[in-house]
Amino acid sequence: MDVEHEEGYTLAIEECLGEGQRGRIVRLHHDLHAPSMGGRVHLVERRAPVNRQNLVTSPVDALRALLADDMEAVNRLIRARMSSEHAPRIPEISAHLIEAGGKRLRPLLTLAAARMCGYEGENHIRLAATVEFIHTATLLHDDVVDESDRRRGRPTANLLWDNKSSVLVGDYLFARSFQLMVETDSLRVLDILANAAATIAEGEVLQLTVSRNLSTDETTYLQVVRGKTAALFAAAAEVGGVIADRPEDEIAALRAYGDALGIAFQIVDDLLDYGGASGTLGKNVGDDFRERKITLPLIKALAAADDAERAFWQRTIERGRQEEGDLEEALALLLRHGALEKTREAALAWSGRAREALTALPPHPIRDHLGGLADFVVARVS
Amino acid sequence: MDVEHEEGYTLAIEECLGEGQRGRIVRLHHDLHAPSMGGRVHLVERRAPVNRQNLVTSPVDALRALLADDMEAVNRLIRARMSSEHAPRIPEISAHLIEAGGKRLRPLLTLAAARMCGYEGENHIRLAATVEFIHTATLLHDDVVDESDRRRGRPTANLLWDNKSSVLVGDYLFARSFQLMVETDSLRVLDILANAAATIAEGEVLQLTVSRNLSTDETTYLQVVRGKTAALFAAAAEVGGVIADRPEDEIAALRAYGDALGIAFQIVDDLLDYGGASGTLGKNVGDDFRERKITLPLIKALAAADDAERAFWQRTIERGRQEEGDLEEALALLLRHGALEKTREAALAWSGRAREALTALPPHPIRDHLGGLADFVVARVS
Repeated sequence: MDVEHEEGYTLAIEECLGEGQRGRIVRLHHDLHAPSMGGRVHLVERRAPVNRQNLVTSPVDALRALLADDMEAVNRLIRARMSSEHAPRIPEISAHLIEAGGKRLRPLLTLAAARMCGYEGENHIRLAATVEFIHTATLLHDDVVDESDRRRGRPTANLLWDNKSSVLVGDYLFARSFQLMVETDSLRVLDILANAAATIAEGEVLQLTVSRNLSTDETTYLQVVRGKTAALFAAAAEVGGVIADRPEDEIAALRAYGDALGIAFQIVDDLLDYGGASGTLGKNVGDDFRERKITLPLIKALAAADDAERAFWQRTIERGRQEEGDLEEALALLLRHGALEKTREAALAWSGRAREALTALPPHPIRDHLGGLADFVVARVS
Repeated sequence: MDVEHEEGYTLAIEECLGEGQRGRIVRLHHDLHAPSMGGRVHLVERRAPVNRQNLVTSPVDALRALLADDMEAVNRLIRARMSSEHAPRIPEISAHLIEAGGKRLRPLLTLAAARMCGYEGENHIRLAATVEFIHTATLLHDDVVDESDRRRGRPTANLLWDNKSSVLVGDYLFARSFQLMVETDSLRVLDILANAAATIAEGEVLQLTVSRNLSTDETTYLQVVRGKTAALFAAAAEVGGVIADRPEDEIAALRAYGDALGIAFQIVDDLLDYGGASGTLGKNVGDDFRERKITLPLIKALAAADDAERAFWQRTIERGRQEEGDLEEALALLLRHGALEKTREAALAWSGRAREALTALPPHPIRDHLGGLADFVVARVS
């Protein structure tokens, strides 16, 4: 890392940690430069910020504007429930992540589904906070598992505090989410969210066991993606319909929408990690390759690989022996077999399925925005 | 570690891991000898095995014999639910811990409470499996947080696999426990177990933040103990009464019994770590001192410490500068102030409260065994 960046980073850390934390700051620096992190420090956000104009016109912002009061109530509830009478570190860490400006996409789905279904009570607020807590707990544990140092452009909790705190505060938020959903008095909602939690954890373990394994196929990839992303999207949308007591076909449609939206969302993320459909090298490209993750672009390229190419993937992904120029070579192979284009098509197909699912629901302005959201998540690669 | 021990250990690890795992075995050896583990390897179980005669007459075994069919059903359910269609590592790790011969004390409490209350359905089996899953999930995360290498006389999962797997499989078991309890269709049971889960996580975070802090008082210690141990004991007993639909005073009595039993159990554990009330040095003594944990014996000794003694505790616990002979000095200080005896009295008092709570319940053979259990947990220090 160059000197200017390092200075900026140090200041940022010091600002986060406050005075009298020199020991921890020194340790952070040590960690950042340790060989276990591959000597690479990502100082930049993974995604460039969306410009103001996009923000104003995006369906996310349209939904946020429509549901502003509800979202404010969700934020109040989140702040109230992440407190802890006995362990002040809990709100410190939770706030670090929850207040860091995440998109709140999952709670927004719950609020949108509930309101679109005509729900008038208070349980959609509880459930929106529930899904955000589950999401946050998952992020805390993910960052420990991935040994990540940056999340949403800021140092991760496991870096600022330690892995122990991230594990235990994640457990706490998970328990809190569970208390919140019990308050809805709906066994069906509890069943949906318990199943989502199991799918999430199962997907994470699966991802761990197939990582660096070149025989990973699209079915397994989809299973991982359902766990990582789609299970919570699907549950977040479904519970909105359940508390509004809608007919079964509408509830199934909401679930199918969330599932397809989540899958599209994750495929786009994995595609952008290779520079999008054009495979354009840029500063945010290649993390998955360097971390030897098996994602859809790689699976598509592997399916078409000849012996020499397979040897390349074995060396770089299975054995992790990466050299200067390997990322460029990987991108060339992906482009040669149309793997990026095929991945883009897969994302568009899932986006289409999300839109399609909405047709089972009665017309409603929110339904239109949810349709727009399905386009929006793939807009970055369209 | 001497050569004979090292060889025995290597064989044990190889037996666990199977052939073709040399890389992992070598890594384990490396980890065991790494400076981060303080060069200390515990090759022995923390507690000597109870002899056969004790086993036959203990109230735990009496309860186990009375509830043998129920317990068999619990074990079947546990095995069925720790499976995973997609991620075979989950049952591998779960089995490593669950089949390792834990006492199953928590599920036994649930079964005993339910049967004593005349319950005749199937939900006590589900709830007993639920509490064992919660307990196992907590152990997996604890071993990551404590960087433990041994649990129940065997290498820990975080050592045999890795921290990542322990975190994620713990999450999975927690989600599974949640699914199981939803199947009971009882919102009250869900509320009790959600609150227990939050208390457990909060206690764990609290323990982390007060560790090595000499100003930790008995109130905070009790809060930590409630989280670590008593919350799940209390919930395990309480839900047995709830599913049997007993009057509120009996349900409250079951909860109070579990709470007091759990606190007595943990205080005894903390006392034995200093060699019991006599402070006898032995091979299983001093772990908490070396790990700089603040437990009741230490809190009692600190309350009576003069300036020189306080300096000793500051050096050894706060700053962690421990030298040859410090454990002996610590034991001498604990004995000088009667700290071990006072700790023993506290354990006996909680055991008495557990017995006392039972008087609110109608006479029943199981009630007598639960009374015996309250004596049994403190018998090791009486």
